[in-house]
Amino acid sequence: MSDNIHEDLHGYYFEDLKLGMTAVQGKTLTDADVLMFTGVSGDTNPLHQNREFASKTQFGEPIVHGLLTASLLSALIGTRLPGPGCIYMDQSLKFTVPVRVGDTVNAEVEIIELDSVRPYAILKTICSVKGQTVLIGEARVKVPRKPNGRMPDS
Amino acid sequence: MSDNIHEDLHGYYFEDLKLGMTAVQGKTLTDADVLMFTGVSGDTNPLHQNREFASKTQFGEPIVHGLLTASLLSALIGTRLPGPGCIYMDQSLKFTVPVRVGDTVNAEVEIIELDSVRPYAILKTICSVKGQTVLIGEARVKVPRKPNGRMPDS
Amino acid sequence: MSDNIHEDLHGYYFEDLKLGMTAVQGKTLTDADVLMFTGVSGDTNPLHQNREFASKTQFGEPIVHGLLTASLLSALIGTRLPGPGCIYMDQSLKFTVPVRVGDTVNAEVEIIELDSVRPYAILKTICSVKGQTVLIGEARVKVPRKPNGRMPDS
Amino acid sequence: MSDNIHEDLHGYYFEDLKLGMTAVQGKTLTDADVLMFTGVSGDTNPLHQNREFASKTQFGEPIVHGLLTASLLSALIGTRLPGPGCIYMDQSLKFTVPVRVGDTVNAEVEIIELDSVRPYAILKTICSVKGQTVLIGEARVKVPRKPNGRMPDS
Repeated sequence: MSDNIHEDLHGYYFEDLKLGMTAVQGKTLTDADVLMFTGVSGDTNPLHQNREFASKTQFGEPIVHGLLTASLLSALIGTRLPGPGCIYMDQSLKFTVPVRVGDTVNAEVEIIELDSVRPYAILKTICSVKGQTVLIGEARVKVPRKPNGRMPDS
Repeated sequence: MSDNIHEDLHGYYFEDLKLGMTAVQGKTLTDADVLMFTGVSGDTNPLHQNREFASKTQFGEPIVHGLLTASLLSALIGTRLPGPGCIYMDQSLKFTVPVRVGDTVNAEVEIIELDSVRPYAILKTICSVKGQTVLIGEARVKVPRKPNGRMPDS
Repeated sequence: MSDNIHEDLHGYYFEDLKLGMTAVQGKTLTDADVLMFTGVSGDTNPLHQNREFASKTQFGEPIVHGLLTASLLSALIGTRLPGPGCIYMDQSLKFTVPVRVGDTVNAEVEIIELDSVRPYAILKTICSVKGQTVLIGEARVKVPRKPNGRMPDS
Repeated sequence: MSDNIHEDLHGYYFEDLKLGMTAVQGKTLTDADVLMFTGVSGDTNPLHQNREFASKTQFGEPIVHGLLTASLLSALIGTRLPGPGCIYMDQSLKFTVPVRVGDTVNAEVEIIELDSVRPYAILKTICSVKGQTVLIGEARVKVPRKPNGRMPDS
């Protein structure tokens, strides 16, 4: 094991980030995901877990909790870009199309702004199903600078 | 049993909503919640599930996934106000203070705007721990009109 | 946020209850529900989770654990009528028809007796699938009186 | 593998049962059990999952869902005595003492009556924590006769 396991586990530091960097990840959202999300959130809305109720709505069948879809973005940000060590500040979410139970959702993030003062990164965040956007928004995350990092002239 | 189970399960219809209506709900977020949220989201960030890693961050201990905290708002909107039948359109989230594993989070929503054309409701959404705000934002939800509801003069 | 979050979270108090009050709730019981119930209960009976074994029984396919169906009654009592704060004393359960995996179960409770001395409420409890009763019984719950409530002449 | 896997998986047949037979099993009920039971049942009662709410009740801390405790009886009946193949008909449950999260619950069943006509078995069902009874009741189960079994004189 490394002498510095903490840095080995750490994701990108602020100095490593560049505009346009992207990451993507996908997951099929099954009945089991919906059930477990219901347990942690307490969101027992029948639209998600009652086929008879859902069949009489405009959707015709159960749909996935919006924040369960959004959680795939949190995963991407927290594990890939910028990854472990970054801190979630803001997230906006616009749900554009319902996600059906059984759909495979692709989550995608892209760095669209870097604020070197705080330092913050702004990411465009999108989820899609078979190429169709189902969720769009932006995230702002605080990203640690490199430990002992010094500016060139310091 | 009722002839109309669908309406029995339904939450508020748009005509039932008034500015200033509120709902509140609370839940203790335990290691089990963090684990199950990790499972459904795939967010394996060590900040949430690795005590050694977390001890070397500014937080000193594991913190709860931001979207897990946010999921309590989804529960309140989906089950209480407006409740079953409403459709989540937008949610903005600003994480102001980290939530520690074991904290009891109170989620609260309040109707701050009603748009009778779409029809939409806008809700102020807040999560707090021991009275301190940890998450603030706004939600926009589409709320069905009453079945067979007619405007007065139609 | 309210000064008295405890009362905000509380369900009906004894003084609020009336004979004939009802509540209803429904949920589709999927493979995921059966799996998770198996996990918490340890009930690994192959009738519920082994399609080959189940195919040779009188049912021909896996059926749902009886107490999983019954748990929907607990949910209704604990969250809706009388709701948070009440205490479960007794429950009788008669399983009349097996529930298949994938069935949507409607749970329904009705207050049929109020004992103002203890104070207790007795509820008739029914679960049904497509209008057919699958589980019938009675529950007795202790329901707190209103805080600071006093009898008229005291 | 046996030629007759179905019979290998099967529990006791009616002819194998005797008055006084017992079985026992135990499980620690943790936060994770409570969370998963909440998911499948939809029972989000804050008495089970909100430490602040629970601290202001007579219990002082979260207690386990009564039907989660009862599910250990279902496990014992469905897997041990009479075991796989039997069919749950009735269960009565009297909750005598609350179970705290973290308690280890011992479930115990004993055959107290055999009805060879149907054929049915009646079991006394008890759950206890550190020797104190927390749940008591009776179960009635239908138990298949041995395949190709014949009465002595037939």
